[in-house]
Amino acid sequence: MHIKTILAMLILAAFSAVPAFAEETSVADTLINLAYSIDTFYFLMSGALVMWMAAGFAMLEAGLVRGKNTVEILTKNVALYSIACIMYMFVGYNIMYGGGPNGFIPGLSFLLGADNAADAVLKSGGETYYSVMADFFFQVVFVATAMSIVSGAVAERMKLWSFLAFAVVLTGFIYPVEGYWKWGGGFLDKLGFLDFAGSGVVHLCGASAAIAGVLLLGARKGKYEGGRVKAIPGANLPLATLGTFILWLGWFGFNGGSELKISNIEEANAVSMVFVNTNMAAAGGLVAALLLSQLWFGKADLTMALNGALAGLVAITAEPLTPTPMIATIVGTIGGLLVVASIVFVDKARIDDPVGAISVHGVVGIWGLLAVAFTNPEGSLVAQLTGIGVIFAWVFGTSIITWGIIKAVMGIRVTEEEELEGVDISECGLEAYPEFSSK
Amino acid sequence: MHIKTILAMLILAAFSAVPAFAEETSVADTLINLAYSIDTFYFLMSGALVMWMAAGFAMLEAGLVRGKNTVEILTKNVALYSIACIMYMFVGYNIMYGGGPNGFIPGLSFLLGADNAADAVLKSGGETYYSVMADFFFQVVFVATAMSIVSGAVAERMKLWSFLAFAVVLTGFIYPVEGYWKWGGGFLDKLGFLDFAGSGVVHLCGASAAIAGVLLLGARKGKYEGGRVKAIPGANLPLATLGTFILWLGWFGFNGGSELKISNIEEANAVSMVFVNTNMAAAGGLVAALLLSQLWFGKADLTMALNGALAGLVAITAEPLTPTPMIATIVGTIGGLLVVASIVFVDKARIDDPVGAISVHGVVGIWGLLAVAFTNPEGSLVAQLTGIGVIFAWVFGTSIITWGIIKAVMGIRVTEEEELEGVDISECGLEAYPEFSSK
Amino acid sequence: MHIKTILAMLILAAFSAVPAFAEETSVADTLINLAYSIDTFYFLMSGALVMWMAAGFAMLEAGLVRGKNTVEILTKNVALYSIACIMYMFVGYNIMYGGGPNGFIPGLSFLLGADNAADAVLKSGGETYYSVMADFFFQVVFVATAMSIVSGAVAERMKLWSFLAFAVVLTGFIYPVEGYWKWGGGFLDKLGFLDFAGSGVVHLCGASAAIAGVLLLGARKGKYEGGRVKAIPGANLPLATLGTFILWLGWFGFNGGSELKISNIEEANAVSMVFVNTNMAAAGGLVAALLLSQLWFGKADLTMALNGALAGLVAITAEPLTPTPMIATIVGTIGGLLVVASIVFVDKARIDDPVGAISVHGVVGIWGLLAVAFTNPEGSLVAQLTGIGVIFAWVFGTSIITWGIIKAVMGIRVTEEEELEGVDISECGLEAYPEFSSK
Repeated sequence: MHIKTILAMLILAAFSAVPAFAEETSVADTLINLAYSIDTFYFLMSGALVMWMAAGFAMLEAGLVRGKNTVEILTKNVALYSIACIMYMFVGYNIMYGGGPNGFIPGLSFLLGADNAADAVLKSGGETYYSVMADFFFQVVFVATAMSIVSGAVAERMKLWSFLAFAVVLTGFIYPVEGYWKWGGGFLDKLGFLDFAGSGVVHLCGASAAIAGVLLLGARKGKYEGGRVKAIPGANLPLATLGTFILWLGWFGFNGGSELKISNIEEANAVSMVFVNTNMAAAGGLVAALLLSQLWFGKADLTMALNGALAGLVAITAEPLTPTPMIATIVGTIGGLLVVASIVFVDKARIDDPVGAISVHGVVGIWGLLAVAFTNPEGSLVAQLTGIGVIFAWVFGTSIITWGIIKAVMGIRVTEEEELEGVDISECGLEAYPEFSSK
Repeated sequence: MHIKTILAMLILAAFSAVPAFAEETSVADTLINLAYSIDTFYFLMSGALVMWMAAGFAMLEAGLVRGKNTVEILTKNVALYSIACIMYMFVGYNIMYGGGPNGFIPGLSFLLGADNAADAVLKSGGETYYSVMADFFFQVVFVATAMSIVSGAVAERMKLWSFLAFAVVLTGFIYPVEGYWKWGGGFLDKLGFLDFAGSGVVHLCGASAAIAGVLLLGARKGKYEGGRVKAIPGANLPLATLGTFILWLGWFGFNGGSELKISNIEEANAVSMVFVNTNMAAAGGLVAALLLSQLWFGKADLTMALNGALAGLVAITAEPLTPTPMIATIVGTIGGLLVVASIVFVDKARIDDPVGAISVHGVVGIWGLLAVAFTNPEGSLVAQLTGIGVIFAWVFGTSIITWGIIKAVMGIRVTEEEELEGVDISECGLEAYPEFSSK
Repeated sequence: MHIKTILAMLILAAFSAVPAFAEETSVADTLINLAYSIDTFYFLMSGALVMWMAAGFAMLEAGLVRGKNTVEILTKNVALYSIACIMYMFVGYNIMYGGGPNGFIPGLSFLLGADNAADAVLKSGGETYYSVMADFFFQVVFVATAMSIVSGAVAERMKLWSFLAFAVVLTGFIYPVEGYWKWGGGFLDKLGFLDFAGSGVVHLCGASAAIAGVLLLGARKGKYEGGRVKAIPGANLPLATLGTFILWLGWFGFNGGSELKISNIEEANAVSMVFVNTNMAAAGGLVAALLLSQLWFGKADLTMALNGALAGLVAITAEPLTPTPMIATIVGTIGGLLVVASIVFVDKARIDDPVGAISVHGVVGIWGLLAVAFTNPEGSLVAQLTGIGVIFAWVFGTSIITWGIIKAVMGIRVTEEEELEGVDISECGLEAYPEFSSK
């Protein structure tokens, strides 16, 4: 109280000494400063939560592969995050947000990393202000998320450095270009394609790149031998559960931060709604997948439940603001049902995706984008279908070319002996659990 | 600087163009908006931290059970969180905060999920404003916490779906009713019963439901055979330690968020005090339990230390604001000593609680509630004892009826063969660690 | 909208009723309250993130030791965090920030824990205001970080209680004194020694104490037998990876919070810059260490990559604000290269540091401090070298005396039999993974 009084008096003294004109300037200026500060802080916290999702993907995938392939998938995950940051700093951010001559060809205005843009502020629609660096931080963790999706699908048989070479291309070029088309103000955005936080731009993108990789790579040895599908259980389910919880937590930043602003009542309410709907969709997806697996397979399959939660999250990501919590729960529930069916179907189609990434992020990503046409009055089914088609075509097309070149130049698959022994020894020279003997 | 100047000039121009009346409205309005925004953001971050506690309970419990019962406890934890969210959305939140004709019978004003209440704001005492959705998000993660406490106590022998049926009733009805009595403005609140963040409403509630379940369920096979208590060690202590750290971190949201407001100096100081006291109580509890286990058992028992930290957290939860940090440390220290003694005593009484949940959340929850009479000048021992009695009687009574009905209808315990083989295979059809052979 | 209008009118009415003088006081007062609130909240969230680093160190170290020594290192980590909190509350905080007669001898003004200083506010340079308790919370988690560094280096052969006795001295006295010299306004600060968030005060401090301990303790049995260096792989690499991710996340609080203020545009931009640079340095360090290990050892060594990320983080900690993101990436990259070389060199020098803590926090901490002379125009190589020398001399000197006394009084090393069997059984009476049989 004491210090407050002194302060108030000091400020008052300052006020009295200057004309009324200056007073108002000072108050208005302080108000802008405070709003800017709140929005920037909210952006940084959201970004930190999304960064945490990188740990979620790493734990989820490490838990769902076999022990002999665990070190490699961990290495892939930590390295892809780092590569994503570096590539997005050097070229990706500017491709995505640098503008362009038309809505198709992105610009490339400057090399972000070379400039200390600490004092650059971002203005959007004449109203949103926050630090360019906070924006970059939030955006860069999204790129890493897209790339994380790929690593699970190609697990247990891909060469480490071939994977990382692909990461350079996806995070530096493929993702930023389609990102520009929607979030950078390109033609998909102008078309009315809606994708709040990235069911398409991030999740379908990652899944499309993953499908391309899996098709060129082929299935794991033994997976589809003798005409039947062999289940290959993950080595560490507590780790996979932890990964799912991390992703669930991080998603509050992913979706919540995508409102981009929180510094007034309306925006604060919107962010709150996004938090609630994100949470409800995940809950709905988990319960739906658990019930379906009990009814269908006669067992409460934990891995299906986890994928159900993730499916709920992916499904609501395209529009977490306009639905009521009950509708959000239903959107997630349908996601959870879809993902179980899709995982079974993809396996029957002999597309070997060890962690179900194509189903969770691809199939359910498409569902999320379509749902927008029903949950958001401004949504258009045609625009959503166009967006889905464009993103898939672009990412799948450029990815299969990129994977193809990498395959020709350095190969993408380990040898049969290396695969049998486990890629950890051949690629990383380490064992994940050297003391725990195998059955 | 450039943009700031332009902005300030623009706003100034706007100001000059309108009468003084409007200026003041605008400034006052912006101030309210900013405070609302800060409080909402603080609420959402606190809620996210409490949501993270669900992961903490899952990891703690998964680490303290045997490998063959790990998948089931993980499934229980992810499913109970989801069920809690859905039930609390449909009925619980409105039972708890819907008001009622008197302080005993709760109201049920509306179905939250059906309404997009994104623009609803909450007013309390004419001063607190934040988004209803942010409030729901913060409250819903508390329900899940209460239910998480139960899962550990009934671990390793309960049927999965029976457990989840109970979760529906506890999170939808049992918890919200006693929550209404205190936090919804019911008779316990009017009586002067103090419970800042839920040593009683959340922790004692969870423990009371757990005791009811354990009594109907009985001990694990082999635990008390031949007249002696057999220790059954957990399979993965790093996981249990991780869970404790997650809970510790999440508790800053649990207690810190329960101040409900941070947007002025007084409230910001209060929240800071709560953070410090929460941390100190946990530290005191951990050191006390570790020292006691060294002196009593001759070994520095990590699981006792972890339970000591949790006991410190539970103990300070009833009143983390009024004590000095040193008193908070002492409250936690007593909690840490109590929990070690209680775990030994409960085991001697042949109440089989694999993770010590009844001791941590029940016995120490009661200690925390009693301590309020000494640490808060407004506390009354009579009111605290009444609150403890009412919460225990209500939750234990309704729980034993609920468990009894579930037992009669669908059974609550797996068969002896299933228990021997591990519930993971019978309930979930999966192994947690399929490659790590057992001794 | 409705409630806003009513409120605005109420406030307006209040305004109209009082003279203009009071109006301005009220607005100015509210502005100060809001800024105070934002800065305090930012401090508390930053502190929570740094507290989370304690979990990171615990998981990292638990993953890198053998299974038979895992419980002890977990116990050390949870206990040292608790001891750090208690000691820093009782004496450390006041030694560090209590002022002193000159810049060398610290003051000891009051016993923090005994006083409910919830309403104390902190003033710095006439401008920074936030809660003393928030400041304490942020500072206390730093002490724990310094002590966490030590536990890894002395792993697998030190007595638990001897380690904890050292923790009492380091966190209560050794760290606070050198902390006073820099951050408490002592002679190192006056000298122009720059250390933004603690490459020296925290990381070099921890490493210097670790070296002293390792020298007195000696290497693990079998490590350097027969003239060659034997690699002793960690038991659980997913855990080590999780720990690294936790540390990476927590570091945003560590460096980001060290800007101390966020409530205006300039400060918000600075915090954003710190977030970006912290992230880029870690990414650079990881990629550099991974590439170097591939080129040098022919394998993509995950543990080197993890240490590379941590090295990047340590390197940028001394100055994460002034460099451009590209320069930050280079600072981290050099840190990543250095750490690989240093780990190999330290091992060749037969200094047995099971987790590489001396290289990560000591060698790279020094690099980070030196880099300031090049990345910050205000940096001086002489001042940086002086700071490095003073911190190392003080911490190493007092540590070796402390370790020596502990060795004489209670011994510091377990017996050869205990070491062979694993310290978990002898010190804690528990196994970390009782069901997973060893090879």
